[in-house]
Amino acid sequence: MPHFLNTRDADFEARFTALLGMKREDSPDVDAAVAGIIADVRARGDAAVIELTSKFDRLDLTPATLAFSEAEIEAEIAKVSAEERAALELAADRIRAYHLRQMPHDAMWRDMSGAMLGWRFTPVSAAGLYVPGGLASYPSSVLMNAIPAKVAGVQRLVIACPTPGGVVNPLVLLAARLAGVDTVYRIGGAQAIAALAYGTETIVPVDKITGPGNAFVAAAKRRVFGKVGIDMIAGPSEILVIADGDNNPDWIALDLLSQAEHDESAQSILITTDQGFADAVTRAVEKRLETLERRAIAGASWRDFGAVIVAKDLSEAAALSNRVAPEHLELCVADPDGLAEEITHAGAIFLGAYTPEAIGDYVGGPNHVLPTARSARFSSGLSVLDFVKRTTLAKMTPESLKAIGPSAETLAKSESLEAHGLSVRARLAALNEGDE
Amino acid sequence: MPHFLNTRDADFEARFTALLGMKREDSPDVDAAVAGIIADVRARGDAAVIELTSKFDRLDLTPATLAFSEAEIEAEIAKVSAEERAALELAADRIRAYHLRQMPHDAMWRDMSGAMLGWRFTPVSAAGLYVPGGLASYPSSVLMNAIPAKVAGVQRLVIACPTPGGVVNPLVLLAARLAGVDTVYRIGGAQAIAALAYGTETIVPVDKITGPGNAFVAAAKRRVFGKVGIDMIAGPSEILVIADGDNNPDWIALDLLSQAEHDESAQSILITTDQGFADAVTRAVEKRLETLERRAIAGASWRDFGAVIVAKDLSEAAALSNRVAPEHLELCVADPDGLAEEITHAGAIFLGAYTPEAIGDYVGGPNHVLPTARSARFSSGLSVLDFVKRTTLAKMTPESLKAIGPSAETLAKSESLEAHGLSVRARLAALNEGDE
Repeated sequence: MPHFLNTRDADFEARFTALLGMKREDSPDVDAAVAGIIADVRARGDAAVIELTSKFDRLDLTPATLAFSEAEIEAEIAKVSAEERAALELAADRIRAYHLRQMPHDAMWRDMSGAMLGWRFTPVSAAGLYVPGGLASYPSSVLMNAIPAKVAGVQRLVIACPTPGGVVNPLVLLAARLAGVDTVYRIGGAQAIAALAYGTETIVPVDKITGPGNAFVAAAKRRVFGKVGIDMIAGPSEILVIADGDNNPDWIALDLLSQAEHDESAQSILITTDQGFADAVTRAVEKRLETLERRAIAGASWRDFGAVIVAKDLSEAAALSNRVAPEHLELCVADPDGLAEEITHAGAIFLGAYTPEAIGDYVGGPNHVLPTARSARFSSGLSVLDFVKRTTLAKMTPESLKAIGPSAETLAKSESLEAHGLSVRARLAALNEGDE
Repeated sequence: MPHFLNTRDADFEARFTALLGMKREDSPDVDAAVAGIIADVRARGDAAVIELTSKFDRLDLTPATLAFSEAEIEAEIAKVSAEERAALELAADRIRAYHLRQMPHDAMWRDMSGAMLGWRFTPVSAAGLYVPGGLASYPSSVLMNAIPAKVAGVQRLVIACPTPGGVVNPLVLLAARLAGVDTVYRIGGAQAIAALAYGTETIVPVDKITGPGNAFVAAAKRRVFGKVGIDMIAGPSEILVIADGDNNPDWIALDLLSQAEHDESAQSILITTDQGFADAVTRAVEKRLETLERRAIAGASWRDFGAVIVAKDLSEAAALSNRVAPEHLELCVADPDGLAEEITHAGAIFLGAYTPEAIGDYVGGPNHVLPTARSARFSSGLSVLDFVKRTTLAKMTPESLKAIGPSAETLAKSESLEAHGLSVRARLAALNEGDE
């Protein structure tokens, strides 16, 4: 059974705090192993990557077969059904259209002192996307990572995707093709992250690495952060549904389960103002769990981390949701737009009963790579902004330097940085001479 | 003597690559010590912070004196001269004006399927700024970190600044006051980062931590990343000046030295198209080094890491600069705006000979917290965007769900995520019934 809470109960605050603090994931401490793998790849390049791939993925590669060839990609893509291809194309088109709107704008203006100020955005030159192998090898994630990069103008875009035993998901390769990925390496784990960050004889290093992965991948990303940019360290994901009593319990049950089926450590929370509806959803979840393909995973997640909370009103529900800062938030209420105004922390909001979270996972348009584990308090989902950087611009005129230069000198002096002050003073002296 | 390179020399590429790869900083491996400190603060809260402050900063605090009182702040601020106060106020006003323009805009639109899509920005609720103690305690950095946070709408803004032996820089407290900082804690090191991230009995945790620090601070920020957001791991900084022959050698020498005087591991690079000018700047640097207050530091930086490169033309100079991806880039050429178009990687660009980098450190307006150690390839300077996060929005209509829902179902099936598909299917079934 999930956790049942009612904000009217005396122990609510204690139980809600416990729910928030619940440790949902045991990340094994693989940091020492990962440090060794990274050092090995830096020292021995391709040879290390090939050995580690043989060991972990039971796949023997050579420098020439580290990447899929065009012919291999074509052969795999040919296996994809027309229906799947059409769905992937629709998803790619909608994701591209959404992300095109995110392109930030350059700016340049003259301020009151006469100085020109502004900024310019430029794309990251090369990006690497990590795509997990096996069960969690999601073509939709390829689109969600690669399309923002291409929209941003990234010139070289590569994928690292382990293929344990040589098995690859053809849809992953099709998604890579649709998104404009240049190269797909069949490598994974910390060795793939190290190769992307530092390069090998065969693999040209990239400047930014994004994409989800297991504990080894996460630890490796944390370690190479600084040498390259990374997106975020993804944790177990969550959905929170705020629903009034005027909803179909089965729809809401399926939305909760669509999160729970991802992972035993996923979390699904319903907050409703209607006790009867809470009970109906609970029953609907139980019923769906009888037949769901992934009922073992979804059932464990729902039992251990699921929660049904009855709140006094929708504002209280929104305040509780803000404390959770959920990755996904559904607002299944009469006025979802109004309630959204009260939401301060959430990765993505799905407005109204006709917007199941699954739409956002595939074809809605917004990115499905979202801040997990309460990190929506301080971070955002993946976007075009992750693949560009901003250069600030400043251009003084002689007049503007005369106006503000002396203050810079004063502050440089106060910080004991003499050359800073002199670099301004020398110019001001020349300008003042010129005035005489 | 600095490194002298000429792009016409046969060994140029090898020497330039060596310059790029030069290790300028020995970061001691303090990770194990930092892990212990963080665990201690998490376990024992205030008591641990107080003990560690006594040990590292020779300062005995109580929970009541962890933060400066209003009276203490007033007393310290009273020591600041009128000239310094006026300079700090001018800097604060200009930084605020620049950063106000960075506020991102919310968006919402209806797409062709009838769905409403968009995003909203909300501020981080609470931020903590780390301000180093001692010599590197820069009031300008307080403004550069705190003002973007306040512009973003951060509600609670605190500073952690160690005060070894109880000594504080009054200008730091004035800068904090001018920027709207709520609380200044006199704690530092990994214990301060741990307290800000996890909280203690006295210190309420924050959601985002920014600001520079020593190796302990950097390692602690890396470790708490994920629990809270962090800005970046700062490395030794650098300036690159591209200058034609039509410049005052002494001005350029001072600009190079204003970076070198920061730190022995700072790097100053001149790229010029004029061998005679290169020699003149080298002589001017030597002459200034005879009398500069921080000549020991600046001299060591210039000798070990400084470089003077003669290039064939300005486009070649720009291409070399892009490989460096410098934190600061000065374009002292006849058409700096034109040359800036060729720059793809730089933290900040200073256009024209009347814009010494020091202007940007204090009063220009743009942020002086910039990507170091070649990370301008993938990251940007501090900005308002670091203190807001974006929530994506999606709202399907029945019609839009009918249009795109089937593709979501297809992709969910291909990823073996049955509940995802069913959550769409259940709604489509009801809608199709309604149509009959």
